[in-house]
Amino acid sequence: MSAGLHARAQDVIARCREIARCTEVPGETTRTFLAPSMRQVHKLFSGWMRNAGMSDQIDAAGSLRGVLAGDVADAPRLLIGSHLDTVANAGAFDGILGVVMGVALCEELAAAGKTMPYAIEVAGFSEEEGVRFAKPFLGSLALIGELDDAMLSRTDANGISVAQAICNFGLDPNDIANAVLDPAVFGYVEFHIEQGPVLESEGRALAVVDAIAGQTRMTFTFTGHTNHAGTTPMGVLRHDALAAGAAWVVEVERYAAETPGLVATVGKLDIPSAAGNVIPGKVVATLDVRSPQDATRVAAAKHLVAFAESVASARGVTLQHATSLDQSAVVMDNTLASALAESVSRVTGNPARTLTSGAGHDAMILARRVPSAMLFLRTPGGLSHHPDEAVLVEDVEGALAAGLEFLARLRDDKAMLEQLVRNAHAYRHEAAHA
Amino acid sequence: MSAGLHARAQDVIARCREIARCTEVPGETTRTFLAPSMRQVHKLFSGWMRNAGMSDQIDAAGSLRGVLAGDVADAPRLLIGSHLDTVANAGAFDGILGVVMGVALCEELAAAGKTMPYAIEVAGFSEEEGVRFAKPFLGSLALIGELDDAMLSRTDANGISVAQAICNFGLDPNDIANAVLDPAVFGYVEFHIEQGPVLESEGRALAVVDAIAGQTRMTFTFTGHTNHAGTTPMGVLRHDALAAGAAWVVEVERYAAETPGLVATVGKLDIPSAAGNVIPGKVVATLDVRSPQDATRVAAAKHLVAFAESVASARGVTLQHATSLDQSAVVMDNTLASALAESVSRVTGNPARTLTSGAGHDAMILARRVPSAMLFLRTPGGLSHHPDEAVLVEDVEGALAAGLEFLARLRDDKAMLEQLVRNAHAYRHEAAHA
Repeated sequence: MSAGLHARAQDVIARCREIARCTEVPGETTRTFLAPSMRQVHKLFSGWMRNAGMSDQIDAAGSLRGVLAGDVADAPRLLIGSHLDTVANAGAFDGILGVVMGVALCEELAAAGKTMPYAIEVAGFSEEEGVRFAKPFLGSLALIGELDDAMLSRTDANGISVAQAICNFGLDPNDIANAVLDPAVFGYVEFHIEQGPVLESEGRALAVVDAIAGQTRMTFTFTGHTNHAGTTPMGVLRHDALAAGAAWVVEVERYAAETPGLVATVGKLDIPSAAGNVIPGKVVATLDVRSPQDATRVAAAKHLVAFAESVASARGVTLQHATSLDQSAVVMDNTLASALAESVSRVTGNPARTLTSGAGHDAMILARRVPSAMLFLRTPGGLSHHPDEAVLVEDVEGALAAGLEFLARLRDDKAMLEQLVRNAHAYRHEAAHA
Repeated sequence: MSAGLHARAQDVIARCREIARCTEVPGETTRTFLAPSMRQVHKLFSGWMRNAGMSDQIDAAGSLRGVLAGDVADAPRLLIGSHLDTVANAGAFDGILGVVMGVALCEELAAAGKTMPYAIEVAGFSEEEGVRFAKPFLGSLALIGELDDAMLSRTDANGISVAQAICNFGLDPNDIANAVLDPAVFGYVEFHIEQGPVLESEGRALAVVDAIAGQTRMTFTFTGHTNHAGTTPMGVLRHDALAAGAAWVVEVERYAAETPGLVATVGKLDIPSAAGNVIPGKVVATLDVRSPQDATRVAAAKHLVAFAESVASARGVTLQHATSLDQSAVVMDNTLASALAESVSRVTGNPARTLTSGAGHDAMILARRVPSAMLFLRTPGGLSHHPDEAVLVEDVEGALAAGLEFLARLRDDKAMLEQLVRNAHAYRHEAAHA
């Protein structure tokens, strides 16, 4: 890789860290939907985009939209993006990295004086984390025409609605329809940190995402009887809700470990009014199950309900369960993902690693209307949503090189680009009639 | 059993319910160490005791002490008692029943015009539950000379010391030494509700206690890593503190169920900062282990520490553990317990059930200085420390009959009484030199 690309990678990291100083909370990085600090972010990007010869605007949902023109006026368009908002006390790379990378790739093309047979739009979505309105993906939902009136009426902790927040920022919620994707867009690519430990553990820099896992979230309530820990013998006279719950937690771990691709976690387990010398009468626990295969996830949830019922019943404990989320897996577009994988392979000299994303991303939303793909960058320590979140400069350099290789393939392989455009048209048609 | 004894049993229950109306908290029964409501309790008992021809006084620790004289001035003395205080929002029978039963037995003897070759002292201990000073057994500790200066200096939530509370009640803490057991006492008998479900489940009214279980109380802290539930695969990259803790809870239950006489309970299990989509990084759990056999209890605690270490280590989780209580079992006196058992058998026509007490009682304290025994009464629903705590009138009648039979045996079997007196002397001598 060129010395120039190394410097560009350093610059990408420096820009992410500069943006991390745009915050609602001094001393940390916290930036929610259209908070005042978002203006600084827009201003920084606007400068970088204009230097690269890109047009730039803010759409009615507050997302930044910059376009590098193609070599003809009605060129097909590739969308590259991620989100500008953060969780509370965040790191500098989750989301932002993907937007900065998109601009950096355009700058590389512009610096080399290259024009492409397609335009590149870089999108920085205003909202993905769901912090302010307890509803994620507001920015990308606007691009697929799903930021509807119900969502615009949601209010934050101060009673301010999404629509009002848009007005307060100087934008017009009546223009939301104009935020919808340009019909020329044939694909969406998102660069994102892995936010997990897999690439680091394997000594790899990059992975192509094959799918975003589906999620089931449930609550399990085991109800036994509180009794004196000393005077109640073991066995049939004891109805220990925790003993039942614990046997179930052990099975959650065992079942997931033996099922390829499945992850299952009991993150919360509460014993109301617990005391050391009282047999737990009630346990309330959560279950989070994810898999790229919906059938695997549905079978897991079903098995774990049946198992919970059996360990409860064996102890004279009753079980109630409720499902709060049941979200299907989203498969990435095979043509786009393969082109990304070949680009990674060309750059690294090794076959590209494929990973399933266990977390949700904007690509999950965009994929409803446009073929989408993602590239993951190694996350040191698997650490994310934390001030110590980091990326390695050599991984950013690798991702930039793979991105440039991918853009060159789209330019050089005319048949593939035409195929992608046809796919996108068919895909959008299908989505519209689904 | 006589119609008179049935009426006496009804009267015992009515008295317990009358005493339950002496409370610090209107609408419920809450009566802690030397609260003003304790004066009413003393007054009620004083009236009943005097009607039975008993002397009565309040010792310097606030315990009620009434004596029915024997047929000679220097007669040996049997102590019957339990405690007058309650937990917060208590039932009407825990403790109180044993004191009311003691008086009722004296009344039966007095009504029949019987004198015995031994005196009977009925003690209502001022404090057993540990509510006010977070230290139980203040009343019975005074009888064995162990209510020392350190304990007298303990303060309640308002900064009032035990000594000051004694003064405020009009008693003199300097007289504490006079509360010590009369050397003529050869045995202590306590009637108490079982506070557990065993007798009810077996359709029995009464059980003779063979031992008060020893207790070990510990805290186990499992420390893994909080990680994203979706992006962290199962296996070596996951360090789930709850999965380790749950495997241990399952073993606690399994090991205890397979070990005769052992009960083991995890009553509390906390996951600090838990969230449904975060792998638990820390679990803090309690362990309560009880057995009449100290070796069994010690082996259980040792096994459960080793098991916790192994399930933690298998998941890259670390374990810390601390012991907050390590209390030996207290065996009841065989001669007294056998005499009680024969009395129960005579009254019920069936061999007496023997039970280990899983909870602590005043008998555990008295047993340090005087041969002691306990008789348990069936507890409907196993429910105790609750306003719905109850006893059945036929069970109280049975216990009164067994008590009278026991008193008659002590009168008729001169050899046994002499043996008990010698035992008590040897026992006290041994305790003094232990």
